[in-house]
Amino acid sequence: MIDDRLRAHRLFLTDVLRKQADFSQTDQNKGIPAPPLQKPADPEATRISLPGPKEWPSDLGSMQLIEAIARRKSRRNFSGSELSLEELSFLLWATQGIRQMIGRGTALRNVPSAGARHSFETYIFIRDVERVPPALYRYLPVEHEIVLVQEIADMERSLSRAAYGQQFVGHAAATFVWACIPYRMEWRYGLTAHRVILMDVGHVCQNLYLACESIDAGTCAVAAYDQEEMDKLIGLDGEEEFAIYVAPVGKRLSSSN
Amino acid sequence: MIDDRLRAHRLFLTDVLRKQADFSQTDQNKGIPAPPLQKPADPEATRISLPGPKEWPSDLGSMQLIEAIARRKSRRNFSGSELSLEELSFLLWATQGIRQMIGRGTALRNVPSAGARHSFETYIFIRDVERVPPALYRYLPVEHEIVLVQEIADMERSLSRAAYGQQFVGHAAATFVWACIPYRMEWRYGLTAHRVILMDVGHVCQNLYLACESIDAGTCAVAAYDQEEMDKLIGLDGEEEFAIYVAPVGKRLSSSN
Repeated sequence: MIDDRLRAHRLFLTDVLRKQADFSQTDQNKGIPAPPLQKPADPEATRISLPGPKEWPSDLGSMQLIEAIARRKSRRNFSGSELSLEELSFLLWATQGIRQMIGRGTALRNVPSAGARHSFETYIFIRDVERVPPALYRYLPVEHEIVLVQEIADMERSLSRAAYGQQFVGHAAATFVWACIPYRMEWRYGLTAHRVILMDVGHVCQNLYLACESIDAGTCAVAAYDQEEMDKLIGLDGEEEFAIYVAPVGKRLSSSN
Repeated sequence: MIDDRLRAHRLFLTDVLRKQADFSQTDQNKGIPAPPLQKPADPEATRISLPGPKEWPSDLGSMQLIEAIARRKSRRNFSGSELSLEELSFLLWATQGIRQMIGRGTALRNVPSAGARHSFETYIFIRDVERVPPALYRYLPVEHEIVLVQEIADMERSLSRAAYGQQFVGHAAATFVWACIPYRMEWRYGLTAHRVILMDVGHVCQNLYLACESIDAGTCAVAAYDQEEMDKLIGLDGEEEFAIYVAPVGKRLSSSN
């Protein structure tokens, strides 16, 4: 016999909630305009343009899919080499890049998302990326740029501490933290939004794993972190936007195949 | 202001639960043996061996990763051509294939999973796969075989109905349904198991999307289905095992790039 809390959690994994939902009461169906597909950025903040696919070296991402899948594994030891700006650009493109705008509030991206709602923002703690001063940035998929959020004092230690002492989280060249803006999905799906948000962040992270493999880098997704501390480090309110998944990225050690 | 139900759902997306969890009380930490990594199959049931990677044509899955990511989109119109047995084998390998056994209860697979718990079984409603009589099968990753679960009367209509009338779910060459056995993850993570289960099924599904692209096939993940009806169609109890995500796969129409 399972107890009530476990039963409630299991229920959350199923599609039973849909039958109880009243979709006529979603904000979308009440005619409320869609929230912006990208969180607005301070117009004064420093931005760095990312080279687009046409400017990338022709071999970037050229690994065969089957090889990327076969090689992927959890990598927590990094060589300490920097990522190039093209490589960072490729990883952001692969995980959240926009392919096509459809109207003002919707875009198709390089990853799938329920109802094309894409309820994530990508924060990147950058330590070792060519031509990018170390700091916390956010990806702006509409412009394919990164925008400076803030400098982080003692980034290595702050990040490791926010991840319950997992040191590799701070020792990466770039640590991706996807934050969720739940209202983007709730606007359309109400109380059935949350299950698909978690599925969606899995889609995103798997593309990061594979894209990393193809550039001799690696990652290991981290779902265990101190929520309050991570949110505070990024500057999120924890209710309308909060960290949902963490992925430190670095170049592979040459010995780790 | 958000209401209590919405707040509870949002909380489920965060890692706040971890702080409230008592991991000393998980079944793993109480010394209870791990559940089997693969649901046992009826030894009398018909099995079909799947060709392994060494038996595949050398160009299977050879598409460049960057091209697979760039081409991937939601595909709901299929050509009606059959999948080869090698292609089916590749899709199963890419999504749940086992790479290495570590002890009796644990295996590393071609997709990542929290704590390597891999809490899924893969069911496949097969309509058009070379040398495979149409029926419902289950993937056995340990043996890299499929095992017959049961024949399904009027499969097209039954599947479409279980997916709230989405016809393409029934018109696919092979419709993947991942079922969740939550205890596999709960054994280790207790009440913090469920968030990562949903992330994990996103990892799995993204590999299916990309693997499909590389074989001129396509898919469109479906999170909206009648839970009771889908579980009944597969023969799942809905509590210890239940459908969690659906992905119909078919060859692309030649006109759909």
